[in-house]
Amino acid sequence: MDIQLYLKTKRQLVDRTLGQLLPSADEYPSIIYEAVRYSVFAGGKRLRPILCLAAAEALSGDSVKLLPVAAALELIHTYSLIHDDLPAMDDDDFRRGKPTCHKQFGEGIAILAGDALLTLAFEVISNYGLEEGKKDPALGLAVMEVIWEVASAAGLRGMIGGQVLDLQAETVSVSGEELKYIHEHKTGALFRASIRTGAILSGARSEELAALTAYSENFGLVFQITDDILDVTGDPAIMGKPVGSDQKNRKATYPAMYGLAKSRDLARQAVEKACASLSKLPGDTKPLEGIIRYLLERES
Amino acid sequence: MDIQLYLKTKRQLVDRTLGQLLPSADEYPSIIYEAVRYSVFAGGKRLRPILCLAAAEALSGDSVKLLPVAAALELIHTYSLIHDDLPAMDDDDFRRGKPTCHKQFGEGIAILAGDALLTLAFEVISNYGLEEGKKDPALGLAVMEVIWEVASAAGLRGMIGGQVLDLQAETVSVSGEELKYIHEHKTGALFRASIRTGAILSGARSEELAALTAYSENFGLVFQITDDILDVTGDPAIMGKPVGSDQKNRKATYPAMYGLAKSRDLARQAVEKACASLSKLPGDTKPLEGIIRYLLERES
Repeated sequence: MDIQLYLKTKRQLVDRTLGQLLPSADEYPSIIYEAVRYSVFAGGKRLRPILCLAAAEALSGDSVKLLPVAAALELIHTYSLIHDDLPAMDDDDFRRGKPTCHKQFGEGIAILAGDALLTLAFEVISNYGLEEGKKDPALGLAVMEVIWEVASAAGLRGMIGGQVLDLQAETVSVSGEELKYIHEHKTGALFRASIRTGAILSGARSEELAALTAYSENFGLVFQITDDILDVTGDPAIMGKPVGSDQKNRKATYPAMYGLAKSRDLARQAVEKACASLSKLPGDTKPLEGIIRYLLERES
Repeated sequence: MDIQLYLKTKRQLVDRTLGQLLPSADEYPSIIYEAVRYSVFAGGKRLRPILCLAAAEALSGDSVKLLPVAAALELIHTYSLIHDDLPAMDDDDFRRGKPTCHKQFGEGIAILAGDALLTLAFEVISNYGLEEGKKDPALGLAVMEVIWEVASAAGLRGMIGGQVLDLQAETVSVSGEELKYIHEHKTGALFRASIRTGAILSGARSEELAALTAYSENFGLVFQITDDILDVTGDPAIMGKPVGSDQKNRKATYPAMYGLAKSRDLARQAVEKACASLSKLPGDTKPLEGIIRYLLERES
């Protein structure tokens, strides 16, 4: 399959949905609506929503119907980027070639824009749950499970735990164990929840959910390794940000810990494991296979 | 009724529930768990959870059962305090006589502690919804409605919108209309959602929900007016913070706009309106009456 075309088509669907879900920038007080739209539409591959949709397809589910929930996952991702970029965190001035939210709108508004996107995600998913639950109580309960799943992934034992350790890693050197913790929590947890969301809303049986969870955990690993590799070998013009920042910040990375060649091996092994776990799913698993293989070749 | 005793009893129940809901400070990475517990247990009247419980009682509902959801409202309140105190927002060093979260743990951890509490609130409510929804799908749907209600109240058209305008009000003077907007959104929205949460989970009929909503809106008004008055007339030793800060910061307040006497009149009128709206509810409305009258006499 043409994975580039698949990703582009889904990205457009997700972007259209995000445009519908986000309040208009004409609302009052306008600066926060501008800030929210600025960050959500600053680019981005929409990987989390697309993984949610692709997981549904792997179970022969109706992925189009899930678009609002899929888009809500991107709202959570964008919130985390805005807060991670703040001066008190990673202190980044640019993201995807554009000034970060706090550089553009000030720190107070950036904190609130992140808060707003996190909150909006739960508003969007619960709104979906109300609509679906009125028609089918079982589906309403599945949406409730998704809210729990997403909140746990975003919370203390998920993304926030990872970011705390990452913050501490800026001043003290971290072990391989701690590096693994950071990645599994900071980025892995939301990939996992995104895929599980698509599965849960498509009525996954427990062994199907387990297979997709295994895929998602390998996906997170491959994403992080290739992300670290790109920070060493990537083209700043394509990536929209300077490379080498991990080394400059003495950040714990796979290439720093294992070298480039071994890091690439680890990524390839995880891709094969992920694809193997898809073998017994009833629907179209080519998108999930294509997306994880694409990570190995990505340039940004 | 002895409203002081009522408030104390409920506060203890809420505190115990919060203690059970918050992860132990032994978890890893411990600093964020410490920060979260530090802020949640820094004192506080637990008004929002108590209003939720009292609304349930006004409809003859089982308020004890609602404790986890009521406590989640306090998590959202605490998140908003932590973020509001940040240097990029109100830049407050003390709250309730203790150093604010960012003074104690650093700015990065304080931002994450706020994020964590906001997220945990939705985790707690959805967990409750899963448990209840498995027994009774209709109750599951009511919990979904509560998630939507709370997310909307906390979001762009609620608390965040109010905080944005409050942030702007520090540099430009605001009109009476804008002052009203700030209060209705920054503090009013969560009081409203707290009361509606208790009502929705007690199976309120639409006219009962309307009556309690009317109460809640007057409650928010009385709370804000008396809060502003305390900043002029309060005893710093009892309040645990310096008074006169609104005037120093040239903040828009009721006493500044209308004078003390007229502000007190406005508060008394709103109390009577609130109590009148409770007249047709089937349960025990004395707690709700007592709480709003208590606002007129409070010293902190």
